[in-house]
Amino acid sequence: MLAEKSTVLDDCRIIDFPKVTDYRGNLSFIEENHQIPFQIKRVYYLYDVPSGATRGGHAHRALHQMIIALSGSFDVIIDDGLRKQSFFLNRPHYGLYIPPRVWRELENFSSNSVALSLVSEVYDETDYVRDYQAFKRLVLNGWQ
Amino acid sequence: MLAEKSTVLDDCRIIDFPKVTDYRGNLSFIEENHQIPFQIKRVYYLYDVPSGATRGGHAHRALHQMIIALSGSFDVIIDDGLRKQSFFLNRPHYGLYIPPRVWRELENFSSNSVALSLVSEVYDETDYVRDYQAFKRLVLNGWQ
Repeated sequence: MLAEKSTVLDDCRIIDFPKVTDYRGNLSFIEENHQIPFQIKRVYYLYDVPSGATRGGHAHRALHQMIIALSGSFDVIIDDGLRKQSFFLNRPHYGLYIPPRVWRELENFSSNSVALSLVSEVYDETDYVRDYQAFKRLVLNGWQ
Repeated sequence: MLAEKSTVLDDCRIIDFPKVTDYRGNLSFIEENHQIPFQIKRVYYLYDVPSGATRGGHAHRALHQMIIALSGSFDVIIDDGLRKQSFFLNRPHYGLYIPPRVWRELENFSSNSVALSLVSEVYDETDYVRDYQAFKRLVLNGWQ
């Protein structure tokens, strides 16, 4: 039996951040290069998302990302051009790590959801791949 | 009439982050050294806070902080040992910037509130001043 070839998708993973519980509320923390494998250059967040909405639909050439459901819940569908996988995020202390070269879509937002992203690069439009067919061609050509 | 002497509290301010509005939800972003005047070394967040609870009650020697109400609302009371001021945070695109040497308390949390903090240092207990009388003495002695 042949061993299955590992793909970029195998590097995507849920990270369970520290949770400091307290009767006055819970606290989780994330330090760059400790809880996450990159430096945090940029933070962005989605809010006021209509329940059931879909976001995302792009890949990055170099950017590493951590996505966290700080409130509510949503699905993240990741796709490296060879395989797809879906993660349901619904706990503030869980984050989904997505390395570069992965197509991602966010969908099935609950009402009152907040999606926090910590990313390794400042905004650079040339780092985005926004067309799925272009993404597939890049995968076939080894991102040359 | 004497001009009022400026204090550390004058450096505390609300920053209105960019807000990208979209029918699928709104997005705000924060890049280190752009929207905020420091590098983001650590991110932490409070959640599951009982409504009406109080948090905080400390100062930092060197750490810069941005506090954002990503969901719900709360008050931040800041105090540089000479003056006190209160801010009501209730919009995800507003952040309160707190420089070092400011005592802060968070109170009056609404239900479902999430308080996101972006800070300039990794965790270092020696940077904390957790006793208010010690804080007052440091203010009187010019933080020597």
